[in-house]
Amino acid sequence: MEYKILKKDGKARLGLLKGKHGETETPCFMPVGTLGAVKGLTWKEIKEIGYSLVLSNVYHLYLRPGLEVIKEAGGIHSFIGWDGLILTDSGGFQVFSLGSLMKLTEEGVEFRSHIDGSKHFFTPEFVVKFEEEVGVDIGMVLDECTPYPATYEYARESMERTLRWARRSLKVRSSPDTALFGIVQGGVYEDLRLKCVEEIVKLPFEGYAIGGLSVGEPKEEMFKITALVAPNLPEDKPRYLMGVGTPEDILFAVEQGVDMFDCVMPTRNARNGTLFTSYGKVNIKASRYKKDFSPLDPECQCYTCRNFSKAYLRHLYVSKEVNSVILNTIHNLHFYGKLMEKIREAIREGRFKEFKEEFLRKFKRGSQFFS
Amino acid sequence: MEYKILKKDGKARLGLLKGKHGETETPCFMPVGTLGAVKGLTWKEIKEIGYSLVLSNVYHLYLRPGLEVIKEAGGIHSFIGWDGLILTDSGGFQVFSLGSLMKLTEEGVEFRSHIDGSKHFFTPEFVVKFEEEVGVDIGMVLDECTPYPATYEYARESMERTLRWARRSLKVRSSPDTALFGIVQGGVYEDLRLKCVEEIVKLPFEGYAIGGLSVGEPKEEMFKITALVAPNLPEDKPRYLMGVGTPEDILFAVEQGVDMFDCVMPTRNARNGTLFTSYGKVNIKASRYKKDFSPLDPECQCYTCRNFSKAYLRHLYVSKEVNSVILNTIHNLHFYGKLMEKIREAIREGRFKEFKEEFLRKFKRGSQFFS
Repeated sequence: MEYKILKKDGKARLGLLKGKHGETETPCFMPVGTLGAVKGLTWKEIKEIGYSLVLSNVYHLYLRPGLEVIKEAGGIHSFIGWDGLILTDSGGFQVFSLGSLMKLTEEGVEFRSHIDGSKHFFTPEFVVKFEEEVGVDIGMVLDECTPYPATYEYARESMERTLRWARRSLKVRSSPDTALFGIVQGGVYEDLRLKCVEEIVKLPFEGYAIGGLSVGEPKEEMFKITALVAPNLPEDKPRYLMGVGTPEDILFAVEQGVDMFDCVMPTRNARNGTLFTSYGKVNIKASRYKKDFSPLDPECQCYTCRNFSKAYLRHLYVSKEVNSVILNTIHNLHFYGKLMEKIREAIREGRFKEFKEEFLRKFKRGSQFFS
Repeated sequence: MEYKILKKDGKARLGLLKGKHGETETPCFMPVGTLGAVKGLTWKEIKEIGYSLVLSNVYHLYLRPGLEVIKEAGGIHSFIGWDGLILTDSGGFQVFSLGSLMKLTEEGVEFRSHIDGSKHFFTPEFVVKFEEEVGVDIGMVLDECTPYPATYEYARESMERTLRWARRSLKVRSSPDTALFGIVQGGVYEDLRLKCVEEIVKLPFEGYAIGGLSVGEPKEEMFKITALVAPNLPEDKPRYLMGVGTPEDILFAVEQGVDMFDCVMPTRNARNGTLFTSYGKVNIKASRYKKDFSPLDPECQCYTCRNFSKAYLRHLYVSKEVNSVILNTIHNLHFYGKLMEKIREAIREGRFKEFKEEFLRKFKRGSQFFS
């Protein structure tokens, strides 16, 4: 994998990420395709919207369809029919969300499947091997996603274990086609985060992620840690803020020098009828849209906004039609894709700060009226 | 609406149906878009597959979103964002499926909404007005869909009422843009069916439908009535066999001179994981497909078959991913669309009978092996 910074605007960076299966400019957002599919859209539509890098998940793919099926299919790209770039989260977040179904040791983490209760064991080595064998373009190392709240002592031990696991992960690498990203943990404790950064940047990862945020902490904590960590990561490597976030969060993080994002928000919200527009969030089930025959976002050029009214989208939502999921997801992923495109354009032209302020002014003002 | 026979091959007919919103060659299959959406596909995809006429339903549209919303949107085409042809079933089938929630009188039919239990009343006049006001291209008159089994006496009374309703329907017509189709009833009684045909063809409908089949009667009864009724309908008007059916049923009916079909089968089966292929039906959840990396139907050129394996389709189905609905529906509607295209081609070339036999031989032989 290659990464190149094309332009800087303050701390914000315009970059180009190249891999075996294509390239993407950064800052970029990765649509979430947990099980090897972005819920509601075909790959054709994902491409039409302009995405060339999507996210999937080791925990989920490991359970279904399993390593053997994916390997025999000729790898993950071949199995899911997506020829663009794929990044997989290690499954750390999922495993650590299992609570009592999970048992952590120095060696790795034992867990029970959320599907059938069967017992499994992930080690850092296994996750790297899985990612290499299925052939993802970027693999995340297995980390402990430190919960919030956590005591200082717990966060420290957890961070140190994540570092030891990161070192173990690198030792078993064997494929040049799968880039590996390390993950910074440390909870909301600034010194732990800085310590983790100091150690992890010594390790030869192709990129570095900020993990353990967006796990229930107050938004100020998320902002504080992002602002602290991002500028301290290596200048010449991509920086990925995991699981984040709202348009506001993304704009803030880009300003701190973050390059990559993923979040279920645009896709999950689409399924729940919450739609992002340039004038704020819209709750499409609201009765005020019953006879609103205007497009969802008059500034949007997506298939949904070009062809359908709020009244029709509301009708599909209240009638529980599956097409509600499709049309809403097309729009929300288009909105996120366009947001990233405008961010990149603004950085290229050295006006990111102005863009951010103008976007947020409009987005927040609209949200007061419409949601 | 205009209808023209282009070619005959035995009793089978190749025709061209033209309306304000486009045209379609017949024999044709109409995808079912009950609530103003074909579950799982966008209109763009429906068009790409090659459909230019879809079916919707007065009963469902009347309840949700309601006449007022559709009228204020500027009509059904504008509301649902489909600029092709639309035929609406009157809702007779739906209302008469409500059982105890329905009360039939000479004037019309009282029913309770399946959604909220609210009381409503449909008359033949109301249904025609609804269809004209929302602006469908072809409206079906309100009929009583005679249940199966029914006594001779019941079927006779029901058929006679359907005739009286058909006459009342014609009296209130006022829009040249909405063609009206009459419906032949009479249960499985041949003399009642013939009597109904005799009377209904005296009425100036733009097309004639065979109703009350595919309601639970043995398949031989369906074949018998279709073979009896279809050839006795006016030569120069389209003939529509409502709610039918399987590929076999369609081939049989085309041979008897039927031109139009609708059925939930391709779309509903897609959602249940049953897929139609040139070598028979495939139950995609079967474990034998776990590592079957070949396409669903090697002869099929649909998006699904060109890009995905049976193993991936199975993975999506067992994982309950919404993309399973999308990819399966694309395939099944493509299969039905192609079947109709091949049927038309065969009629054009005067080899319908051979085509039918060859298709069925392959389809049935495959079904033994694969389903």
